[in-house]
Amino acid sequence: MNTSEFRRRGKEMVDYVANYMEGIEGRQVYPDVEPGYLRPLIPDSAPQEPDTFEDIINDIEKIIMPGAASPACTELETVMMDWLGKMLELPKAFLTEKAGEGGGVIQGSASEATLVALLAARTKVIHRLQAASPELTQAAIMEKLVAYSSDQAHSSVERAGLIGGVKLKAIPSDGNFAMRASALQEALERDRAAGLIPFFVVATLGTTTCCSFDNLLEVGPICNKEDMWLHVDAAYAGSAFICPEFRHLLNGVEFADSFNFNPHKWLLVNFDCSAMWVKKRSDLTGAFRLDPTYLKHSHQDSGLITDYRHWQIPLGRRFRSLKMWFVFRMYGVKGLQAYIRKHVQLSHEFESLVLQDPRFEICAKVTLGLVCFRLKGSNKVNEALLQRINSARKIHLVPCHLRDKFVLRFAICSRTVESAHVQRAWEHIKELAADVLRAEKE
Amino acid sequence: MNTSEFRRRGKEMVDYVANYMEGIEGRQVYPDVEPGYLRPLIPDSAPQEPDTFEDIINDIEKIIMPGAASPACTELETVMMDWLGKMLELPKAFLTEKAGEGGGVIQGSASEATLVALLAARTKVIHRLQAASPELTQAAIMEKLVAYSSDQAHSSVERAGLIGGVKLKAIPSDGNFAMRASALQEALERDRAAGLIPFFVVATLGTTTCCSFDNLLEVGPICNKEDMWLHVDAAYAGSAFICPEFRHLLNGVEFADSFNFNPHKWLLVNFDCSAMWVKKRSDLTGAFRLDPTYLKHSHQDSGLITDYRHWQIPLGRRFRSLKMWFVFRMYGVKGLQAYIRKHVQLSHEFESLVLQDPRFEICAKVTLGLVCFRLKGSNKVNEALLQRINSARKIHLVPCHLRDKFVLRFAICSRTVESAHVQRAWEHIKELAADVLRAEKE
Repeated sequence: MNTSEFRRRGKEMVDYVANYMEGIEGRQVYPDVEPGYLRPLIPDSAPQEPDTFEDIINDIEKIIMPGAASPACTELETVMMDWLGKMLELPKAFLTEKAGEGGGVIQGSASEATLVALLAARTKVIHRLQAASPELTQAAIMEKLVAYSSDQAHSSVERAGLIGGVKLKAIPSDGNFAMRASALQEALERDRAAGLIPFFVVATLGTTTCCSFDNLLEVGPICNKEDMWLHVDAAYAGSAFICPEFRHLLNGVEFADSFNFNPHKWLLVNFDCSAMWVKKRSDLTGAFRLDPTYLKHSHQDSGLITDYRHWQIPLGRRFRSLKMWFVFRMYGVKGLQAYIRKHVQLSHEFESLVLQDPRFEICAKVTLGLVCFRLKGSNKVNEALLQRINSARKIHLVPCHLRDKFVLRFAICSRTVESAHVQRAWEHIKELAADVLRAEKE
Repeated sequence: MNTSEFRRRGKEMVDYVANYMEGIEGRQVYPDVEPGYLRPLIPDSAPQEPDTFEDIINDIEKIIMPGAASPACTELETVMMDWLGKMLELPKAFLTEKAGEGGGVIQGSASEATLVALLAARTKVIHRLQAASPELTQAAIMEKLVAYSSDQAHSSVERAGLIGGVKLKAIPSDGNFAMRASALQEALERDRAAGLIPFFVVATLGTTTCCSFDNLLEVGPICNKEDMWLHVDAAYAGSAFICPEFRHLLNGVEFADSFNFNPHKWLLVNFDCSAMWVKKRSDLTGAFRLDPTYLKHSHQDSGLITDYRHWQIPLGRRFRSLKMWFVFRMYGVKGLQAYIRKHVQLSHEFESLVLQDPRFEICAKVTLGLVCFRLKGSNKVNEALLQRINSARKIHLVPCHLRDKFVLRFAICSRTVESAHVQRAWEHIKELAADVLRAEKE
């Protein structure tokens, strides 16, 4: 949607809201629909080509309003999570539609998804061990629980461990910054020998530092065999898996118990919207379920409806699936794929510019929209370069450490980025690099 | 703002966004401001009378845009939490402005605020006990930790205990559904004698079931004396404390370590916006702080800036303080007070209608906008009445249990509610009650 259409549609939307407020006394207070009313009213997957804005807005009055905030908010979310799961070709076990045991939920952030998965895994292992040995207290078990992630995992994983009150150990990644079977196996053996209880592994697809990928095909089977919950965090990279040429990066997700990525990062859905799927809904709800009278309802135990409050930390919920519905229909799957591809192409364009300049080096494989690069030379000179770049305030780079190297990260992430921006940014970086190198010699 | 002004202003806002998008290349990428830039640019408390919409929108371009999303998002939040704290006459120790140790943060929900407070308290007591006895493991301490709330507290408190992996015990409330000193003291003595470690108390101001108030003036000093963290949850009732005639309900908050209420419940700020204050910021940040390279920044240890990511469960944040800024200025403190007063007056109007009908009884003191009532008689007849009310779909009531009584709850909560709605609802309830009583006799 260009800005001139945005002006028109935005104003129509303002009128829609105003009309709604003016006519609210004429609407029904309580919806007149049965559980499951929504799914038959909409297609069972996202459109390949864009829908028109007219079609979408008409569906609001036709499909959402009769179901009001509740149950429409819940039911649209369940269906949108199925749409998105299918776009990624997630294994069917993660979808709701087949009346299976899995399903998706929108969390606020990947941090919350990791925490919720860890808490579910914690409850599950405690129940399992107490079933076998009823004399074991929760605290006695928790003291021995140990979770794992790669040493490249996001800090939110360590934080989930802190909050959950369990040990979290970092598995040394390999030369490509990936977690591999051997290192994980070694840690498991060492920790089991020490009397600890491994119960939870977070594998990252697309690390924050350098967009590296843990080896799911190696790590997954170990988790299944050793009865550890496998959570796959693809916060950034997940959006790319809607393109067939990147889908192989998700191979091995079939071994996972839970999977998460953030459509708000790279799929044009406004912040916040973090998509999480589990293979067994009851694992989540078992960890959180409490039912006071004021939250009971007549479909409580019917199995017909989803109570998302049992799937998350907060109780209240926003109607975030509307954002997904609009975006998926306004762009169509093909439009979203084109958007991802353009970003990946631009990052490779930047990569080739860096490679053409012998003063610079690329520090990690460029797979998606992130390029890790640096001046050949000391950390000090790279810190000086970053300082100049960010002080000039024309572009903004966030650094990382890869092993002992201080590395600059060039991330393609704006909705409106074009080749010209990349070229201009590179010219700018080269100029500042020349200044830094000159200053160093003086 | 009436709907005709909303149409005009909403459309201006659509144009503002479109202009922003069209002109974005001309704007600076990285803000050119120093930490603390924002506070001197705006008044140090909310206006008593409404500001004009023009003034507010002009301030967006003048005050927010130069600070872009960051640091404006953080700095406006800190100042808005001070504004709101002053509206409530919170003790100065909870405010940021005096460069003290306290401060406010916007959470998503009261559930998260309770959890964050519990986690901070847990970390604090573990550190304290380990400092005295370094041989104690975290698990050995956690096994003995015990938290308390009234038996009327919201289910999210029990959930925070589950997530935090600590015991939570319910203190029997008194005849007014309030937690009192004697019952708390009794539990403490019993639990200490059993070797447990009391560390955390949640006091509720305005319970979900019947809007009862725990006795803070009794409970607070006990918490301070016994070195237990006191968290005060006023999720619903907190908004009323901006009126001087209701402020006494908050007396005793000076004993608390943390305080929370939801402006999204009753202060006209859209969901979600849950306001939380602490007396010592470092208690929160100490529980969560992790600093990987990609999250470091040049003001890291300056003490000049607030890193809200250390105050909450998620990492990412939305710009929720803008909603507060707009609402506080559009209504002014007097407008917000008038809104609260109108609701309280309407609930008393409903209460007096109930009292005039000898078939009905009032089940708890009506203090704010909630009226708990029932037909004199069995739970069965009241369940039948509720069923008829909610099936008719003209109004919607959520019930509760008060001790062994099934009770109906009439909540005044719509922005546009008038006396006519209350009268109509009561006529409707009376008709259905007559039907129920007739059916019972047959």
